[in-house]
Amino acid sequence: MVPIVSIVGKSGSGKTTLLEKVIRELTRRGYTVGILKHDAHGFEIDHEGKDSWRHKKAGASTVALSSPEKFAVIKDVKTEWPPERIIASYLSDSDIVITEGYKTSWFPKIEVVRKAHSTKPVCAGSKELIAFVTDVKMKTRLPVMGLNDYRGVANFIVREIIRKKGTFPTVSLVVDGSPVPLKPFIDDLIREAVTGMIRSLKGCSDACDIELKISRKTKRGNG
Amino acid sequence: MVPIVSIVGKSGSGKTTLLEKVIRELTRRGYTVGILKHDAHGFEIDHEGKDSWRHKKAGASTVALSSPEKFAVIKDVKTEWPPERIIASYLSDSDIVITEGYKTSWFPKIEVVRKAHSTKPVCAGSKELIAFVTDVKMKTRLPVMGLNDYRGVANFIVREIIRKKGTFPTVSLVVDGSPVPLKPFIDDLIREAVTGMIRSLKGCSDACDIELKISRKTKRGNG
Repeated sequence: MVPIVSIVGKSGSGKTTLLEKVIRELTRRGYTVGILKHDAHGFEIDHEGKDSWRHKKAGASTVALSSPEKFAVIKDVKTEWPPERIIASYLSDSDIVITEGYKTSWFPKIEVVRKAHSTKPVCAGSKELIAFVTDVKMKTRLPVMGLNDYRGVANFIVREIIRKKGTFPTVSLVVDGSPVPLKPFIDDLIREAVTGMIRSLKGCSDACDIELKISRKTKRGNG
Repeated sequence: MVPIVSIVGKSGSGKTTLLEKVIRELTRRGYTVGILKHDAHGFEIDHEGKDSWRHKKAGASTVALSSPEKFAVIKDVKTEWPPERIIASYLSDSDIVITEGYKTSWFPKIEVVRKAHSTKPVCAGSKELIAFVTDVKMKTRLPVMGLNDYRGVANFIVREIIRKKGTFPTVSLVVDGSPVPLKPFIDDLIREAVTGMIRSLKGCSDACDIELKISRKTKRGNG
């Protein structure tokens, strides 16, 4: 799976501003950055009255828009997708995925604490917490970076998350909506078996990125 | 691949309004509908100043938002993705995908012609054209439905596209960004080989939907 780090902290602590600067810095250094933001209260992204908004409103479960520069997808879910699933399905082509707001996930976490707002961390004691970004003098053994030290945070992410993640190639597997962790031996086995099979197909002998979906669903509409 | 039909017609002919009614009708009948709209001139979907907008602006190549009811993904592309790729990657869980605006694709097409706007079809003579929806008296051997006959259009899509598509299960394969068409024998072979391998993994013995990504990319950031 792609390297992941989560920026956590109380609402109003400055996560979005820090993230903005870190994204800019990592992008400048040549990394492809993917962002996943969690919003427990829902969000509005589409503009009322636009075509895509009208189609979503009419009942379409997925609406996608495509242009020469970008595309967008809005998708209904029956229950919230775990972040691992969204990352595996939609962000796995990034060099690094930074999430915002998944306090209780197993992702390594960097917590933002801003004195003017609150001096009490939300993830203190969490074993996944790996650093603080703060203007508070913290009692901690973890690395502490300043609120404006976005270069330091970018260095830290490169060193501790991206480089430690190990080397490519990688396999990501989602079965019935749940990401399946793979031991290295199984990872190798699946990769070699599937790559071998695909490369024997016409025009696929140099295949690098393979995306395979198999569906056995039998439920159909009743119209 | 999932069944696909394209609604085409001049800008202003009433495609979006027809589509809105057809989506509502198909959804009412129990079908899961996915929509893919092509916009050659680009589109704005995010709201200026919002977090996701700021992160995209800062250089993130993909920004995703997740809530308990839905999620959204906005992704940069270097060159426009062919509709087949977006459908394979993002819409393959629909019962039917309806595209709007892919006039030159190989998808079967229904053309909307509205007298008040223009009486000249844009796809006349195209071998993929399968019906007209219009208030013009057309000289054609193709089925013609009225502009307000959204039930007729829904029936037509169910009968000619969804049901004719054949039965599940299906395999969808994208290699290095290009969808790879599979002959039935190869489809079977890949499905059985991969499903067999995956089902032997712990907790995957009843696997129905399998999503597998293999990446051999070696390019990394240089920070």
